[in-house]
Amino acid sequence: MPTVRVLRIGHRPERDRRVTTHVGLAARALGADGMYLAASDSGVVSSISDVVARWGGDFFVQDRVTWRRCVEDWKAAGGTVVHLTMYGLRMIDVIDDIRSHEKLLVVVGAGKVPGDIYGMADYNVSVTTQPHSEISSLALFLDHLFEGKELSREYPDAKIRVLPTKAGKRTVER
Amino acid sequence: MPTVRVLRIGHRPERDRRVTTHVGLAARALGADGMYLAASDSGVVSSISDVVARWGGDFFVQDRVTWRRCVEDWKAAGGTVVHLTMYGLRMIDVIDDIRSHEKLLVVVGAGKVPGDIYGMADYNVSVTTQPHSEISSLALFLDHLFEGKELSREYPDAKIRVLPTKAGKRTVER
Repeated sequence: MPTVRVLRIGHRPERDRRVTTHVGLAARALGADGMYLAASDSGVVSSISDVVARWGGDFFVQDRVTWRRCVEDWKAAGGTVVHLTMYGLRMIDVIDDIRSHEKLLVVVGAGKVPGDIYGMADYNVSVTTQPHSEISSLALFLDHLFEGKELSREYPDAKIRVLPTKAGKRTVER
Repeated sequence: MPTVRVLRIGHRPERDRRVTTHVGLAARALGADGMYLAASDSGVVSSISDVVARWGGDFFVQDRVTWRRCVEDWKAAGGTVVHLTMYGLRMIDVIDDIRSHEKLLVVVGAGKVPGDIYGMADYNVSVTTQPHSEISSLALFLDHLFEGKELSREYPDAKIRVLPTKAGKRTVER
């Protein structure tokens, strides 16, 4: 399976804080390694880092990256760039091909994205060709990429874990 | 396949507007019929209705519902209630069973939810048992429920459609 990192572009501090935090948490819960944020937003970084500290794993968030540099460095190091956009090729048509790559950078935009990204990406991928959300697009992309195996992932170093239950809330803390 | 409607609870106008709009758009793009919103927020209703008008289909949004009444009426009419919560049973363990029901109301909360909902729901379902986002949870739940068939859905009455493409943006308007 490929290793995956997410690059969040077009983030506007304040306005996008909650959505970008959801992008990062979905990335972590669905098997990505970390998120680069092309903006300065310590609120996003601390929210996600707090979740990692309690719930385990080594997902990282790095803000203040320059998106173009991040994409260029990734490609120079032999990685593959996937841009999620509703205008791209259908996910179900390209996901098997994408899965054969070793290192994926998944670019998700907020609102309008710089036009250059379409040409710089190795794959422009559309999840449904309908408008919905970068959070749902990323989640579905990762789930199809990892073929559902990420859904039962455990985080052995977690301070808190959920014990799945029919009704109510059960957790174990250590 | 079951028919599905979403009930969004705990929505705070302003603060949750964007996330709730994403919930509604993901619901529409992934095969649900409509969304009930347990709050008054004409901004959410008009954003989603604008997408429906351009992109087709008959997804509806109804705000100002009372969540308890909505759940009770749904059950009284023979429907099944699924509450998405990270504390519930693992989705992969219950999704086949849930798929056998005809009418599903999928309840998604923002932040804290009223404790009663755990007991009123027929199923409390967790997507990963990790904290992420109600948007990614709903998307993954619907995709697993419909077994990916919803991803290629067409909306014949759309004013605008995407022509999937390798790079750039191609649409047809009529």
